[in-house]
Parts: sequence; C-alpha cells; structure tokens
Amino acid sequence: MAIVLGPNRYGKAETRLVRVHRDGETYGLVDFNVSVALSGDLAATHQTGDNSGVLPTDTMKNTVYAFAKQHGVGEPEAFALLLARHFVKTQGQVDSAKVSVESYAWDRLGPHSFQKRGDYTRTTVVTVSREATQVVSGISGLVLLNTTASEFHGFVKDRYTTLPESTDRILATAVDAKWRHLGDAADWATSFQGALDAMTGAFVNTYSYSLQQTLLSMGTMVLTNRPELAEIRLTLPNKHHYLVDLSPFGLENDNEVFIAGDRPYGLIEGTVTRDDAAPASAEWYL
Amino acid sequence: MAIVLGPNRYGKAETRLVRVHRDGETYGLVDFNVSVALSGDLAATHQTGDNSGVLPTDTMKNTVYAFAKQHGVGEPEAFALLLARHFVKTQGQVDSAKVSVESYAWDRLGPHSFQKRGDYTRTTVVTVSREATQVVSGISGLVLLNTTASEFHGFVKDRYTTLPESTDRILATAVDAKWRHLGDAADWATSFQGALDAMTGAFVNTYSYSLQQTLLSMGTMVLTNRPELAEIRLTLPNKHHYLVDLSPFGLENDNEVFIAGDRPYGLIEGTVTRDDAAPASAEWYL
Amino acid sequence: MAIVLGPNRYGKAETRLVRVHRDGETYGLVDFNVSVALSGDLAATHQTGDNSGVLPTDTMKNTVYAFAKQHGVGEPEAFALLLARHFVKTQGQVDSAKVSVESYAWDRLGPHSFQKRGDYTRTTVVTVSREATQVVSGISGLVLLNTTASEFHGFVKDRYTTLPESTDRILATAVDAKWRHLGDAADWATSFQGALDAMTGAFVNTYSYSLQQTLLSMGTMVLTNRPELAEIRLTLPNKHHYLVDLSPFGLENDNEVFIAGDRPYGLIEGTVTRDDAAPASAEWYL
Amino acid sequence: MAIVLGPNRYGKAETRLVRVHRDGETYGLVDFNVSVALSGDLAATHQTGDNSGVLPTDTMKNTVYAFAKQHGVGEPEAFALLLARHFVKTQGQVDSAKVSVESYAWDRLGPHSFQKRGDYTRTTVVTVSREATQVVSGISGLVLLNTTASEFHGFVKDRYTTLPESTDRILATAVDAKWRHLGDAADWATSFQGALDAMTGAFVNTYSYSLQQTLLSMGTMVLTNRPELAEIRLTLPNKHHYLVDLSPFGLENDNEVFIAGDRPYGLIEGTVTRDDAAPASAEWYL
Repeated sequence: MAIVLGPNRYGKAETRLVRVHRDGETYGLVDFNVSVALSGDLAATHQTGDNSGVLPTDTMKNTVYAFAKQHGVGEPEAFALLLARHFVKTQGQVDSAKVSVESYAWDRLGPHSFQKRGDYTRTTVVTVSREATQVVSGISGLVLLNTTASEFHGFVKDRYTTLPESTDRILATAVDAKWRHLGDAADWATSFQGALDAMTGAFVNTYSYSLQQTLLSMGTMVLTNRPELAEIRLTLPNKHHYLVDLSPFGLENDNEVFIAGDRPYGLIEGTVTRDDAAPASAEWYL
Repeated sequence: MAIVLGPNRYGKAETRLVRVHRDGETYGLVDFNVSVALSGDLAATHQTGDNSGVLPTDTMKNTVYAFAKQHGVGEPEAFALLLARHFVKTQGQVDSAKVSVESYAWDRLGPHSFQKRGDYTRTTVVTVSREATQVVSGISGLVLLNTTASEFHGFVKDRYTTLPESTDRILATAVDAKWRHLGDAADWATSFQGALDAMTGAFVNTYSYSLQQTLLSMGTMVLTNRPELAEIRLTLPNKHHYLVDLSPFGLENDNEVFIAGDRPYGLIEGTVTRDDAAPASAEWYL
Repeated sequence: MAIVLGPNRYGKAETRLVRVHRDGETYGLVDFNVSVALSGDLAATHQTGDNSGVLPTDTMKNTVYAFAKQHGVGEPEAFALLLARHFVKTQGQVDSAKVSVESYAWDRLGPHSFQKRGDYTRTTVVTVSREATQVVSGISGLVLLNTTASEFHGFVKDRYTTLPESTDRILATAVDAKWRHLGDAADWATSFQGALDAMTGAFVNTYSYSLQQTLLSMGTMVLTNRPELAEIRLTLPNKHHYLVDLSPFGLENDNEVFIAGDRPYGLIEGTVTRDDAAPASAEWYL
Repeated sequence: MAIVLGPNRYGKAETRLVRVHRDGETYGLVDFNVSVALSGDLAATHQTGDNSGVLPTDTMKNTVYAFAKQHGVGEPEAFALLLARHFVKTQGQVDSAKVSVESYAWDRLGPHSFQKRGDYTRTTVVTVSREATQVVSGISGLVLLNTTASEFHGFVKDRYTTLPESTDRILATAVDAKWRHLGDAADWATSFQGALDAMTGAFVNTYSYSLQQTLLSMGTMVLTNRPELAEIRLTLPNKHHYLVDLSPFGLENDNEVFIAGDRPYGLIEGTVTRDDAAPASAEWYL
C-alpha cells in the first residue's frame, strides 16, 4: 500500500475581462469572467516543488488579456476554444485545458453607453485535450414563474407525508442548465439564443404535473430545435411559493397571496440526451 | 449621571410577498420585500419586559399578507402608505411607522408566465408619524457604463499621488439613489419611470470630468424633470476599469482591454435639492 | 427656486490591507478593510469638473498602504485616527474626514502561521473635523443564542394577531453594535474586549421577556463597565427558530426540534446613552 | 435516433435543522443544513407527470425533523446514514439516496448559551444505494495563511510571463476538502478532528515551493494519520497577497505591506489516494 497523487489540475480562476471594440463612433462591449484549468504531467511540483513544468497562473491571466487584444473577443465559446487550444499546443506537459467563461450582457443606451442586464448569466466550458475537443454552453440564474397551469398530486404518502395535493399552484424556478455540443464549430450566438428560447418556451407552454415533467419538456424542446446539441443537463430548484392561510382574518385566499420561501427548496436535476450521441470526452455538467 | 434608553424602534424585516391578480385569463404578478419598523412609547418592554404596548412583529407580517388580499397590491409607495397609516392609526402607543419595500420586476412571457428581470431593484421608504408623512422612492443596483467621454485630470497631487491623468477612461457605476417627494400623493409609476429616465439620460449625455460632475447632472436632471420631488441622494461607486499594460507582450492597448476591479472602489455620495423645499420630516436617505 | 448641490462626500472604499510585523522569528498579522470619505469645499468638481480641490481616491489608497509601512498598524481606532487627521491637516479644502475600518481576527498556529476566525468583525468609524474628533467602535456578525430563559407574552392582540404566547423559546440574534467614545484616546484593545464581554455576558445572563429587554441589558452593561463610552446603538435581528409541529407523526416536540428561519426576521434597534454625555459631533451609528 | 431521459435525481435541499438536547440543566445544540437527493425509477413523473413513484420533497423535510426527534442528532455522518438508509429501505422505487449535511459549530457560553463560530463548516455527503454505502466527510472555508516559508520560482516562462520569481511570499488559502471513508462505521468526531489537525499541521509545517506541494503534504498527512480513509480531494484557492510597491513614496517594502486580492485567484485541485483502496461507489468529491 502506498499513498499517491491522484487526479489534479490547476489554473487561474475568475479573470475579469472587459473588452471594448470601436467601430467608428460606436463602441461595443464584452464583459467576461474567465477561468483556466490545466492538467497533465504535474507530479514534480506536487512532490518536490520542482516547478519546471508549471506555467504560472499569472501567465494564464496575462494570456487572457493579451489574446483579447490580439484576437478581439466575440462569442464566449470561440474565445474559450482559442485559449484552451493555445495552452495545449504550446505546453507539451499539458494534456488537457479547460476554459470556463461567464458572460454578462449589457443593453445599449447610446453609441458608447450601456446598462447591465441582470436576468441571467451565459456560460461556457470548453475542454481541449490531445484527443478531443468538447464545447458546453449554458445559462444560470434564469428565473421563470407560472402563476397557474401547475398541479402536484398522486404522489407517494408515507408516515411523514403531510403535503396536501394541489390542482393549482405557482411553479417557479431558477434555471441552471448546461448543454453539450456535438462538434466544436457552430454559430454560437444563434445556438445559444435558440436553446434559450426553446427552454423558455417549453416552460411557458407545459401544463405541469411535476417540475420533473417540465424539466423533460424543456430539455426535449432544446434538443428538438437544436440539432447541433448532444445532450442537456438541467438543475431546477423548485422555488416554493406558499399559500398564506388568511382564514384567521376571515379572508379567503384563492391563490392570490403567497410567501416566497428561501429555504428549503426542492431540487430537480435531470439530463436529456440523444441516444446515439457519442459520449462526453470530459466532465461536462459539473 | 444615569444610563438611559435612547431612540429605538422595532419591527418585522423582509416579509416576502408575492401577489397574483387575475383579470380573466391574464394574471398579474407583484413581488415585494416588505419591512416595517415602529417607534413610540416602548420603554416598558425594554425596562421590565412588559409587552403590553408591543404589537408582535409576527402580527406585522400577518398584516402585510392580509392587506395584500384586502386591498390588492399596486405601486409600492401606495402599499407602504396603506400599511404605515394603519399602524399609526390603530396603535395609540406608536408615534411613527416606517415601511420599506423592495420591488422586483418581472417581464411577461405569456398570460400566466413571467421571467424575472435583474437589472435593478425599485425601492420605497414611507414614514408616517402623527405630524407628517414622508415618501421616498429609489433604485438600487442600476449598473451604467460609458466606454468613453470621461476624463479625470487637474486633481491635487501630494506625496502619495501616483495616478496618471487621463483624458479617456471608462466610467462605470452601480446607481443607488433615493429621492424624496414633496407630497404624499403622486402617480407613483410615472414618477419612478421619469426619475429613472432622467438619471439614465444624464449619465449617458454628460461628458464627464469627474464622477461628481456626473452625479450632479443626474440629480439636477431628475429634479428638473420631476416637479413633485424635493431632493435626491445619489450613492455612486466608481467601478474602476483598469487599462491592462500589454507592453511586455509588444502590444498596444488603446483603451480596448480592461480589468474590471472588485475592490477598492471610489465612492461618491451627494445630494441635490430644491433650495425652497421643506426639510425632511424623518431620516430619508439612510 | 433653484436646484442646488447639498451635502456630499467622496472617498476610496474597501482598501484591503494586510500588514505583517516581524519580531525575530515571530510574525504578527493585521488584516483590515479601510474606507476613507472626505467632505469639504467640493462644489467645483460637481459643477464644472474642475478637480483642483480633489485629492484622488487612488491617493487615499496609496496613503493607507504607505502609512501602514511608515507607522505600523496596531489597533484599528489608532490607525483610523492617524489617517483621518492626516487628510484634514494636509488638505485645506477638506473639512471632515471619516475613516472606517473592518478588522478580521486570526488565531495563531505557529511563529508565522495563522487561521482566520470568522466569529465576528470588529469595526471602527473615526470622524475628524476641524472642530471635533469622534471615535466609534463596534462589532458585527456576533451570533448569540439562548436555548431557554426567554419568554414572550402579554403583547398587544389585534385582528391580525395569531402568534401564541410563549413561556419558553429560543432567543437568537446576530449582534451589530456601535459604541461612541467620550474622548479620542483610550486603550482601544482593552475597551473593545471589555465592551464585547459586557454585551455577551448580559445576553447570557438576562432572563428575557423580550429581545428589547435583552438589548437594554446589553447596552446598560457596556456603559456600566466602560466609563470611557458615551453611548451604544444595538441592532439585533430576532433570528426566529420555529418549533416544528411533530403531532402529525404522533410525536411531541418539547422545545427540541426547530426550524432556523431565514426571512422574515424581527429587527430590534435601540440606543443606550449616558444622559450627561456631550452630543455626537457626526453621524455615529449609521 | 431518439431524445431520451438520462440520469436524474430530485430531493429537498437546505432543510435547516436546530436540535436542542437537554441533560438536566445543561443544553446541547446541533445546527445542521440537510439536503436529500433520491434517484431510481422516476421516468413516469418526467414523461407523463404520473407521480405515483414520487415521495414529495416536503416529506423528506418532515422526515429530517421527525428523525431529529425520534433518534436525536449526533455526528452528521451518523444522521445522514440514518436518513439515507431510511429512504432506500422504505421506497422500493429508489435505488440511491444521497444525504448531505453542513454542520455549524457553536461555542458554549453557559448551560444554555452559545456563540456561533465561523471559522469553517464541517460537511458530509453520504450515498446509500442497494449495493454500497459511501461516506465522505469534509470541510469548507478553513482559511490558513503563512507569512513566510513559501517560495515560487523555476517555473515555465513563455511570451506572456511577467511574474517575478519569489523566494519569500505569503501563502494563503481557503481549504475546501472532502475525504472518503473506507467503511461506513467510524468514530466520526475523532476522525474529523484528526483529519483537520493533520491538514492544518501539514500546512503550517511544510516549507512550500508551490501550493501544489503544500496540497500533497496536506493530503498525505491526512491519509497517513487516518487509516480509516481511502482518499482525499483538496480544492485550494491561492488567495494572492500582492506586495505593494512603495518605492514612489521613497519607502521600502520588505514583505510587510500587502494587498489582499479578491479576483483573480489561483485554483489548485488535487486528489491524494491509497493505491489499494477500492474505487468510489458514487461521485464523491463534487
């Protein structure tokens, strides 16, 4: 028996990049949070502190900024691919580079003026190894709510069950979703917008008997509409809205007044996949 | 010399209220965070634990929910006035009631479907005493950015000054503003939208030599456009965007690549007021 | 009628300073978050962008770091006084300097090793004007809980009251307190520890019929034990612990199983003061 | 080709449980945040909204509270095992139950009085399936700092490298670690304390040439001291402390004055394992 080093990686997390592009009098704005993680032959630095195979994380940060100048910054997937390929290509000791980007949207107010949107964050995680390239796109913090068209009943009852059955409830969630692309080239902007519209449309149009049912509808609609995608993982908190008991005050509450609860919350997680898609080449939804 | 009880108040904070209104097949949604604070003759509970003058904070919470049913919920200022007046009217020992509301906006996706916006929070603080009623409206978390049309130079230099003068910089801030109404009746929705548009317009259109100058422009525009307002207090963090030094990589950086800094940040605070407005009847911008 | 500039100030917020002091092989560690705000004759920068009276906030940051080297860093009150006096003394256009410090405590693990404590943050706010110097010390995030020795009954009942009376409940709070010193010189470390011990002791030893009663006990004990203090302001959220109804499962709950609630919460605020203390020379508890 | 449901699970997250135990006049306090996730035959609810195999997440919450009464609450691993086994045993459609607990420590101030510590959170993730039981313990938020005895040099230099080599720097991290037990029975309290002491001791006593080297030392010490453990995964942010350039002020900075940076940060992740340990039966460090 021996105690040995297992899987490991290292990198620079949360490099905050703002890139301005000028087109005459009109300015464009890109706002990213970039994280890089490299893995490969890193035993020496762990075992003896020999850093001869360690590209400093400070250099990764510099590379993000230099590439932003040299190549410009467009879609997050493209920028992440550029960075990940660079590290694998130039660092022989690196087997795999994972580049994650959070992208924040701004609305234009004028030729050089912007207002930050806060409705959701667009995400990407690109993993480039010597064998394969994997692109995952996603979204976090998209909060959706239906005031009706949601029921929940017919569930298991055991000794500890007190929940009444409901034929009309609020259904609300904060969508955290990631979807894996079949390839490493796409019209990233169109693909993202299409996936978002499919998810949102399915949430709105599904008459729901469980949040699980809504989840499967959302995932299925995304894969139906976006042939370039292999699979999607949705993590949906069930943001409970509790009907207030107004009977002590002689008032009825016909699904009008709710407490928006913080904790606990339901948490529904599920994957929807094409059954003939090649398996993922790296962790993809974590 | 004696040790005595000084100013005090108590209440229920952060009651989360979601109110659904139905108009045929179409549903409306109001999403509030309500806080109540009462002051008055409260010496007994402090000194002996005699609670005969204490309306429980749990009752305040119940009142928020019951009023939401009984009166419906429209503009936050109106709902806060209703609550504050109720507590002063029905509780003889209460001299003053302060009701604060944070209001979260949702975009409609369908007759019963909504997506949460996250661009800013609308706020109100209403203070009703036996002598006066004061209504303050406001906003928090409105993030604005100009990519150019901002300079900063001609400032004091002392032994510790190293900042270079700049004739072109990013100017970005997260607006936190409160404005006091002259009266206690207004078209609250129109007033809020008008104040927001004035602030945003002034930020966009001011060629700025300091964030202070932008602040005064924003405040002046709000008071100019909104005659129903007495004064406005703006708290503007200067969200620094640092130009990256790309010269070690043989690259120029012509105001294109920036680090979005977290801390420290500048903090510019200022009030703009009508010189003939009656003074505030209660703390109003804290 | 005219629209005019009212009260204003500006500065650098949240400069993060870590200062290491060496004493032979033993290292000391100070960890501060420092904010500076200056007010005075600042009309020009607001009105025309003339910055000839504006010391850059970047210079304030530099001054924090330079002073940390030149003078060392000991108690937060002393360091804040040093900084505030410097700005008022060297900048003729400045009438008043407010320096706030959050101080984070670390436990020693070895001659050069430390583990961060997270039990509370020590705070200070020093305001130096040409007329007066005011020192406020404080604490935030000190979470205290009594599992018993707390009752709440005899309160007002109105139409909206449903809360049952209680003769045994959990009492829990997160203490946020600020206390104003009579002078500008003290043994700051001893004074802070004494105030903390007095507050904590009073919380533990007060058989409580309301959180207001506990608040007054805490404040009174602080002023009784610390003659150097003029007054104290306590902000005490009532962190509700709800007794779980286990009767549907055929179980009793004799004050054993609780839900720790997030929102809403009670909020109890009060000041305890010496009736012969000179009034504050600046805002002191906000 | 078909679009199909892939891996999925559901449960109740963040049930906040406070349990008081009385021993005569002395009270004990346990403060947990409990999350439950079940997987198994859940296709029907996804596909048709047929909930006949769905135990409501509300029932999971009730079970947490009822079990706290029926069985008392001791070590988090034991409580998580009890819950996870209950769900697998009583719900035939459930293949696997994952129960996660965050445990918050309180210091005793008196027979019924406590002060919350904030130095770290103790964690556990127990996964019980029909084939195997896996217990993972861990810690998050343990912030450690060495003021010296850390170097970083000899690293790769490429076109984008500007970092100077250092022979004396601050090394600081916020330890997030999880360790997998070989079995499902242990003296959980002793095991946790032993692992914590080993990690902390290794951090303090390792003269470090890279944070990776410190990571391997920490993991090795834990496995060396705790024979009941199979492997450990450490996630160590490199919390950068930047030396301030004081030369513009004519001052030297001999590793005395530092900026504590927020973002970006290094992120070092690695696993240390016994080479003869059986593989994990479920995801264990995610």
